[in-house]
Amino acid sequence: MKRAAVAENRESEINALRRRASRTRRATAPGLEEILYREFPVLDHGFVRVVDYLGNDSAVVQSARVSCGAGTKRTSDDRALIRYLMRHAHTTPFEMCEVKFHVKLPIFVARQWIRHRTASVNEVSGRYSILDREFYSPQPAVLGAQDASARQGRGEPLPPAKARRILSILRRDAGEAYAHYGEFLGKRGTREPLARELARIGLPVSFYTQWYWKIDLHNLLHFLALRLDRHAQYEIREYADVIASVVQRWVPLVWEAFRDYRLSAVRLSRAEAAVVRALLRGEPAGAHAAALTARERQELAAALGIDLTRLA
Amino acid sequence: MKRAAVAENRESEINALRRRASRTRRATAPGLEEILYREFPVLDHGFVRVVDYLGNDSAVVQSARVSCGAGTKRTSDDRALIRYLMRHAHTTPFEMCEVKFHVKLPIFVARQWIRHRTASVNEVSGRYSILDREFYSPQPAVLGAQDASARQGRGEPLPPAKARRILSILRRDAGEAYAHYGEFLGKRGTREPLARELARIGLPVSFYTQWYWKIDLHNLLHFLALRLDRHAQYEIREYADVIASVVQRWVPLVWEAFRDYRLSAVRLSRAEAAVVRALLRGEPAGAHAAALTARERQELAAALGIDLTRLA
Amino acid sequence: MKRAAVAENRESEINALRRRASRTRRATAPGLEEILYREFPVLDHGFVRVVDYLGNDSAVVQSARVSCGAGTKRTSDDRALIRYLMRHAHTTPFEMCEVKFHVKLPIFVARQWIRHRTASVNEVSGRYSILDREFYSPQPAVLGAQDASARQGRGEPLPPAKARRILSILRRDAGEAYAHYGEFLGKRGTREPLARELARIGLPVSFYTQWYWKIDLHNLLHFLALRLDRHAQYEIREYADVIASVVQRWVPLVWEAFRDYRLSAVRLSRAEAAVVRALLRGEPAGAHAAALTARERQELAAALGIDLTRLA
Amino acid sequence: MKRAAVAENRESEINALRRRASRTRRATAPGLEEILYREFPVLDHGFVRVVDYLGNDSAVVQSARVSCGAGTKRTSDDRALIRYLMRHAHTTPFEMCEVKFHVKLPIFVARQWIRHRTASVNEVSGRYSILDREFYSPQPAVLGAQDASARQGRGEPLPPAKARRILSILRRDAGEAYAHYGEFLGKRGTREPLARELARIGLPVSFYTQWYWKIDLHNLLHFLALRLDRHAQYEIREYADVIASVVQRWVPLVWEAFRDYRLSAVRLSRAEAAVVRALLRGEPAGAHAAALTARERQELAAALGIDLTRLA
Repeated sequence: MKRAAVAENRESEINALRRRASRTRRATAPGLEEILYREFPVLDHGFVRVVDYLGNDSAVVQSARVSCGAGTKRTSDDRALIRYLMRHAHTTPFEMCEVKFHVKLPIFVARQWIRHRTASVNEVSGRYSILDREFYSPQPAVLGAQDASARQGRGEPLPPAKARRILSILRRDAGEAYAHYGEFLGKRGTREPLARELARIGLPVSFYTQWYWKIDLHNLLHFLALRLDRHAQYEIREYADVIASVVQRWVPLVWEAFRDYRLSAVRLSRAEAAVVRALLRGEPAGAHAAALTARERQELAAALGIDLTRLA
Repeated sequence: MKRAAVAENRESEINALRRRASRTRRATAPGLEEILYREFPVLDHGFVRVVDYLGNDSAVVQSARVSCGAGTKRTSDDRALIRYLMRHAHTTPFEMCEVKFHVKLPIFVARQWIRHRTASVNEVSGRYSILDREFYSPQPAVLGAQDASARQGRGEPLPPAKARRILSILRRDAGEAYAHYGEFLGKRGTREPLARELARIGLPVSFYTQWYWKIDLHNLLHFLALRLDRHAQYEIREYADVIASVVQRWVPLVWEAFRDYRLSAVRLSRAEAAVVRALLRGEPAGAHAAALTARERQELAAALGIDLTRLA
Repeated sequence: MKRAAVAENRESEINALRRRASRTRRATAPGLEEILYREFPVLDHGFVRVVDYLGNDSAVVQSARVSCGAGTKRTSDDRALIRYLMRHAHTTPFEMCEVKFHVKLPIFVARQWIRHRTASVNEVSGRYSILDREFYSPQPAVLGAQDASARQGRGEPLPPAKARRILSILRRDAGEAYAHYGEFLGKRGTREPLARELARIGLPVSFYTQWYWKIDLHNLLHFLALRLDRHAQYEIREYADVIASVVQRWVPLVWEAFRDYRLSAVRLSRAEAAVVRALLRGEPAGAHAAALTARERQELAAALGIDLTRLA
Repeated sequence: MKRAAVAENRESEINALRRRASRTRRATAPGLEEILYREFPVLDHGFVRVVDYLGNDSAVVQSARVSCGAGTKRTSDDRALIRYLMRHAHTTPFEMCEVKFHVKLPIFVARQWIRHRTASVNEVSGRYSILDREFYSPQPAVLGAQDASARQGRGEPLPPAKARRILSILRRDAGEAYAHYGEFLGKRGTREPLARELARIGLPVSFYTQWYWKIDLHNLLHFLALRLDRHAQYEIREYADVIASVVQRWVPLVWEAFRDYRLSAVRLSRAEAAVVRALLRGEPAGAHAAALTARERQELAAALGIDLTRLA
């Protein structure tokens, strides 16, 4: 009942913000204006929403043209210039856009996220605020077994009975920890409640926290390159997916270039390039392939559609 | 003639930008919208203009309230909260605003400015572009003599004849260096002009360069604290003065708090505080004052209106 | 038994490192060499140890002299120059020293600590490693009640019976969470253990983690200024205390200057300085004092030993 | 005469530093100890020398093992782990090494160099110090013509007569600017010399400056990746070459991995990878090649030894 009221309040606040419209002389990004303040749900209780931004595709171009001289203006159009910048890792013009998110996320995800240092953060503090009773409870389908080959990853989903048992334990423990948290703080007006900063230390890292997170486009793309990757933990990838769709709306030309020159790029090491050169000449990979580790051979075969036997 | 046309083009471009008005759901800063894109002249050929921004006083408050919990909402108003943050050096909410400038400035000023690392920069490159014939030529009144006491500062203006002679030499040398630069590059279509990246190495550091400079409000205030200071070189202080007036328009509550708690603040060292405590008790400063250097005594006397003899 | 063996192994590894001695042409800090690799215990299971460093007091001086010109060499000695730098916030020479710590700390402390972004970190990852059964269990004496005046702080210790009850709940919950974590992972060789990255999400933020943390001296002093402060949470202050003693051994002249010009400094706002000026002239604070908030009046009175009635 | 004495003093100072040897418990890098403090000449008056360092190949490994768990210890040796980190862009362990250089370099090179923001710098200040009469005068062989295709680069050397003329003008202008600088400052004891901070504004960007520059290994490798590149200006590449040889001595395993996985790596964009896949299957590049720009086709052909006609 109380929470529903809170949720309603929040929704009406967001709607009020969304209805507000001012005139501005600044550059705008129509695709992003459309979804400003809207909450995109992630996991069971989390969300991502954009609360402000600065710049658009043209801002990148404008800054790049200062560096490269006005002459460029006529000979290349915006898309070609953005692709050129991305290809040659001229990254500073991408710093000229900025975006500010409001994110709700489990603590263990926040701990991975915060490692991206070139960003500004204001997080809800458990020293000041009383935390909500919201913790992450995975869908059974994502309860993967420890992957034997990749040490940090997840393999196949656990058998349903096992998954159910684990989930029920996780939920019960989290619920109890929260009940004790409540007990330590006491009811409103309790004499001598335990200090909030201590009361929270029993809460699991599955509990949700919230923050404002502001970052420039260059560093955001780096975040995405790492967190969209299949080696990233599933839960943070879910956030990265939503943010990727935001970037696509905000700076569509930058997004396309990023996809073509970074996300879907294939990097060949010195030895891998030697293998590919040999194969393209119609020669056996031979000694060049021998310089690769088994895993490198597999990844190269997969990336370029080469039959693994040709790398033996 | 050619330059006049360029200037006219530029002005019409700026006016076009200034006339543009879009609707946005973002937070706006009316005081800053008014002057967006306008060039504020600095020194003889330089300028500062704001080309974009993100956030306003309320954005600082909004982010601070996330960190401190919603409860604050009722008990303190925006101004009080901003002053509280400034007083207690809770700096992260000030990172939640961002501003982007277009600046034209002499190279020797640029070299001081760039030392502020937490900012994004796109500078005109002399490797790509042909630089304009514009160099800084100081007003005679600011041609100060080397200050004997403060080793890096300027003292009294030089005698007029000496100043005239120096200025005429500086102008002639800069003019000749530029003429040679032009000769090295040749007329348009010259066979084998010298590479631009080399042709420029004879130009003095008084020549103007340009850049886009984007920075968050927290780091901008730090820039201002250092560059508004009387120990900063006069030429960069001229830029800082213009930027200070921009900040005042943009985030008036933050500016006021910054002035009261940082710009006009007095910091007492451990020993200075001991002196002040003694004097306030009506005791002589005695041993406490003896722990100060001569310069510290002078500065303390000046800062708090104490007769220097009381610190002897 | 197993843990004891681990602890023994660790100790012999540390002793081996400590016995190792190489010749180096680098600057050394004898006070720090003495305690290199030694574990200083913090809280119930945590520690801080220095694993490497670069520079010493002289390195600060050497770098400062490059900036200020060789002339300084004769006129001022090292101590005076370091104090001058600290007083005037010439911070870049302090960046020229670096130190690397190995720290074991509860997750909730790590979450505060990591907010200091200008540092390098390698943390144990719960995605790869199985975490130890070690969680922070506060001493009863530090189980403070929520402080009514300062919203984030701790007041008086709770009554012993209440404290005992809270501690026993915290311990039991943490113990159970760890037992379940162990169950999810299964015994060595279990078929289909839950992925480590998920198994850990039920562990409370009181569990210990470890990291290598490398930071320059300027940023370390900033960390200390914030984390030695009485508003910092007790648990992180315990770490800051140990680190402060390390800095004192490493760069004694810098430490002394830091204490005198920052830690024990008193900053007067514009209005507070006006009050002090009036009082020093023997006039009533009057209108100047009226510009202060009640809390500012209290803090000013306490900082400078002024009777509160004189500020009324 | 005077300068020779200065140079002699300097040399004896360096030799004294080099003879100094202390005992340390820290990790050492024997290859780097050997050349500590030694000046490696660059261009006509510049140099690079290492004045301090922290860490070695093992420090990278040690930090990586914390992140990845102790288990790794047995299964992989140091070299394999470092190569794995480099391949997968796990960059944080490379931040755990640090190096401090003393560099003398022309101002126009310093202006490119300083754009690498994640580093600490103390530069000689022309506000405090009187600058030496040393400016960069290129070798005739590097006086290249403006390259028509690559807008920022240099093409063939200019004809000798033209080169001679340009060099003589550059030298004369720089010499005169310095003579005027000297006149403005006056002889020692001159009444009312012009303030140093102004006297220097007529000096060309070819004049030398000096700084201490401290950076971590990760950011240093990034610097090298950009500044060893053939698109970097020749003059800064000369410095990068010397620094590369320093890195090779300091952390030989990291250097080898950096060369194999970054310096000599070939990055294929999405479209380029499609071309390569088609060719490896023995099919024509066709539509995939059509998606490339002319320049991309050329670069791909060159990188993988493909006949350009196959990409038509």
